Amino acid sequence: MKTKRLVILGSTGSIGVQTLEVVRSLGERFQVLGLAAGRNVTLLEEQARQFQPRLIWSEDDGARRALEAAAGPGARWTPLEEQAAHPDADLVVVGTVGRAGLMPTLAALRAGKAVALANKEVLVMAGAVVTRAAAQGKGQLLPIDSEHSAIWQCLWGERRSSIARILLTASGGAFRDYTQEQLARVTPEEAMQHPTWQMGRKITVDSATLINKGFEAIETRWLFDVPLERIEVVLHRESIVHSLVEFVDGCVKAQLGEPDMRVPIRIALCYPERVPNAARSPIDLARIGELHFDAPDFRRFPALSLGLKAGRRGGTYPAALAAADEVAVNHFLAGRLRFTDIAGLLEDVLSTHVSAADTDLEAVLEADAWARTYAEDWVRAKV
Amino acid sequence: MKTKRLVILGSTGSIGVQTLEVVRSLGERFQVLGLAAGRNVTLLEEQARQFQPRLIWSEDDGARRALEAAAGPGARWTPLEEQAAHPDADLVVVGTVGRAGLMPTLAALRAGKAVALANKEVLVMAGAVVTRAAAQGKGQLLPIDSEHSAIWQCLWGERRSSIARILLTASGGAFRDYTQEQLARVTPEEAMQHPTWQMGRKITVDSATLINKGFEAIETRWLFDVPLERIEVVLHRESIVHSLVEFVDGCVKAQLGEPDMRVPIRIALCYPERVPNAARSPIDLARIGELHFDAPDFRRFPALSLGLKAGRRGGTYPAALAAADEVAVNHFLAGRLRFTDIAGLLEDVLSTHVSAADTDLEAVLEADAWARTYAEDWVRAKV
Repeated sequence: MKTKRLVILGSTGSIGVQTLEVVRSLGERFQVLGLAAGRNVTLLEEQARQFQPRLIWSEDDGARRALEAAAGPGARWTPLEEQAAHPDADLVVVGTVGRAGLMPTLAALRAGKAVALANKEVLVMAGAVVTRAAAQGKGQLLPIDSEHSAIWQCLWGERRSSIARILLTASGGAFRDYTQEQLARVTPEEAMQHPTWQMGRKITVDSATLINKGFEAIETRWLFDVPLERIEVVLHRESIVHSLVEFVDGCVKAQLGEPDMRVPIRIALCYPERVPNAARSPIDLARIGELHFDAPDFRRFPALSLGLKAGRRGGTYPAALAAADEVAVNHFLAGRLRFTDIAGLLEDVLSTHVSAADTDLEAVLEADAWARTYAEDWVRAKV
Repeated sequence: MKTKRLVILGSTGSIGVQTLEVVRSLGERFQVLGLAAGRNVTLLEEQARQFQPRLIWSEDDGARRALEAAAGPGARWTPLEEQAAHPDADLVVVGTVGRAGLMPTLAALRAGKAVALANKEVLVMAGAVVTRAAAQGKGQLLPIDSEHSAIWQCLWGERRSSIARILLTASGGAFRDYTQEQLARVTPEEAMQHPTWQMGRKITVDSATLINKGFEAIETRWLFDVPLERIEVVLHRESIVHSLVEFVDGCVKAQLGEPDMRVPIRIALCYPERVPNAARSPIDLARIGELHFDAPDFRRFPALSLGLKAGRRGGTYPAALAAADEVAVNHFLAGRLRFTDIAGLLEDVLSTHVSAADTDLEAVLEADAWARTYAEDWVRAKV
């Protein structure tokens, strides 16, 4: 058993923290080579003390001394991209949120690393660029998201050409049973009450608008090379069935489990092995009793349509949508936008944006910048 | 694309008829080399005329001339075992019911054939003998039953050592909602009303007693080399989830689809390819709406416990149980036994039988003969 050396980007976020929990539970299989995070220096310092990484970095330059000291003798201040492409790294976990994960992901893939990707925006923004980088550098993308992990597992031992349809399941988010009128009045605090998953703030709001599923459909398109036309969203309130794949012969496979992000994290870390998990809670279907499925309501959750539409259009539409969504969610969380305004803003972005012909990195970053400016202006005009 | 040459044993039964339907729909991929059936000469003659097999056989010797003529010039009267081991056969479909499938299955496996097995009793009676024959002759067992096909598909791309648990789903049969008192009074006609599957008479009664699932657990044990202790039965009335596999890391995979035996038949015939099926009806989970799961009621359906118990005990207990069940079901269908007597008889068989130390073919056939005699005596004493 070779020890895998991990770089964890975004180690203080929801995915980062759970990744370290999984790493701890797996003992000698893993060694933490690098940790990088934003501004939660207190937690990063604690992680550095515990895992003694050789590479450490935080957005907060002022914490450099303290963090290097906590990481132990020989620890080096190493920014995200450098950690991602470090010669000693076997697997790079990208647990950052928003645009921050893009450049490190590209760096890792170009350096031929395996990248366990939890950051949705990376593929949504720049799927073409990322998959190109993976092909050129012989890097490998491993999904961490529960839905994509489910699809991935359903495809083990199958040919890509056998895929007829992918069914992405959606819990429906915090407001799945709300009327349109109620939706207009929800608060950021209410949006944080996700019915089944414990996740970061941005993703929890994205789950509530359902744009999350639009993004996941776009990621699915790039991860598994399936056109958007063959990707469907089905509501499934229990979040037990994590997604399904229908094959050309009519068979359907699904992956199931209690909602627990540590499971897909573990799968990605251990791949291609299935490592026994003594702490697993075996699924008890008789206790679960019922699994529900329903069609999504595009009228109440227009952001889902917008996400799928951006995906079908391709080009830089998804990048513009993702950037605008980041701005919109921030303003919603700060109390400056109503929940229903998020989709309003996104609709305007999508109808105003003009995609670049080439979706190279430059075009993507340009679309991103354009959409952020557009969104900020939109919010300013609204408030 | 190489044409696969098929031998279909039990071609006039439920599985045989559906296999020929699948073969017809797949055009040039298959050629029917041999057909063999029991006493439904009319249907066999029609099949022979349509598929022009080189090998033909029926239990009814008197029909030989007519059948050979229907099969066309050069057609040869060829008994089951000889068809199964024929040098030109690529795949042998064993769709017979009861003990009749055993010797042909062994012959095919010893000759290194792929055997698509729908006949439950073969593995229940003689799993050790059959798997030994497959190993020695380099034959391959492909399951046709929907549950085993589901498990099989869930295991593609997985290691056997990764299996933690297998969850066999059971519709619950015709009487799943009956009280114990009602069960004592049911008629053979009522037992034929299976809620989700169209199957043969014997299997439909076995589904109603739930011994069917005990048999399937034993088959699972042999097909996938998983001890009975790791095989569980879960009630699932819709028969949409055809079975599930839980892996050591806590992930669960399932295979789903509308209940249609032609789907698993098609999988086994086409393996290792997934051949596009234009006629497939894509699963519509939103329309299905709900999937239910429940624990089986061993008190109302004691035959299920008996099946699992025989499986755990091993030796010739399963062979004795299967033989006695065949006798019991025949007498029930003929109106000579009450439905609840079936389990009563099986319980007595299991507690009276003494397993042989070696489960070679001789011991299996001896146990089979013993149980049939015991069961006939039991019925005679009862009536």
